Amino acid sequence: MLEQKIKSVIRDVADFPKPGIVFKDITPILHDQSLCNEIVNEFATKIANKNIHAIVGVESRGFLFGFALANKLNIPFVLARKAGKLPYKKIQYEYDLEYGSSVLEMQIEDIQPNWNVVVHDDLLATGGTAFAAAKLIEMQNANVAGFTFLVELDFLKGKEKLQQITSDITSIVKY
Amino acid sequence: MLEQKIKSVIRDVADFPKPGIVFKDITPILHDQSLCNEIVNEFATKIANKNIHAIVGVESRGFLFGFALANKLNIPFVLARKAGKLPYKKIQYEYDLEYGSSVLEMQIEDIQPNWNVVVHDDLLATGGTAFAAAKLIEMQNANVAGFTFLVELDFLKGKEKLQQITSDITSIVKY
Repeated sequence: MLEQKIKSVIRDVADFPKPGIVFKDITPILHDQSLCNEIVNEFATKIANKNIHAIVGVESRGFLFGFALANKLNIPFVLARKAGKLPYKKIQYEYDLEYGSSVLEMQIEDIQPNWNVVVHDDLLATGGTAFAAAKLIEMQNANVAGFTFLVELDFLKGKEKLQQITSDITSIVKY
Repeated sequence: MLEQKIKSVIRDVADFPKPGIVFKDITPILHDQSLCNEIVNEFATKIANKNIHAIVGVESRGFLFGFALANKLNIPFVLARKAGKLPYKKIQYEYDLEYGSSVLEMQIEDIQPNWNVVVHDDLLATGGTAFAAAKLIEMQNANVAGFTFLVELDFLKGKEKLQQITSDITSIVKY
């Protein structure tokens, strides 16, 4: 089963990014391209038949499988980045973090009105960043047709937050 | 010709990241997956017959075509990131920027001794970051077998810096 196979490869790193947190390190997955292909195929299968026009990948680990998924589906890949990184005309959405806030940006003209768009990131934690990406899509009069994550940290209840946008939320691995 | 096709898609953004700089925005390329496939195939052709064991991608736009190239070649993909982003045990290389300095990191165990490794980033400017990635590979007793870039800004002379490491430097688009 794909979930178990991925769990056997993910590395637990204690006390990162701060004491008491056990970080799920997905980088060992990137050493096994046949496993990577299985992951991309799984995402593609989950969002098949939804008439998706673009994938938005959230900086920066969301660029990995997000771009691969867009390539697999032969549709545009769009970057969502932290403030100040994207060069062209852009829109912003500010969101709360545990301490303080952050700003996510997307370039205008990357998404067309009425497109069906999927947001991808490697990890669903509290959902704040993915929610911000979804809001940026809605601000461009497009539809958030789903979210895909490699890993979901269930106890942080990010899914509840994202269900305000859509119930089409795919995560391959759950903890 | 691939270079001309890519140049027709790259967007010039004036005064980014600061006044007087014309930024080469590669993001429109990501809307055209058949062009993306041509790019990956070109990189793969250029490094064919070099017995490459891994691709290192430099954060964060280097994650895009770097991961795609590693996938195409069916070899491991390794992340090089700015300080504090990678969770596991890691090594560091500090390098100079125009103002101040920066630190690039790579996790140990991602690269094995004597591997032939290619460094990928989207843009070759002064070469400082790619040079740092190469040094991190050498610190692990592996060989830097080449560099691949989508775009090279010739007038910044990054190639001269990287030739201290290897003369196998591929850039598809030159300005």
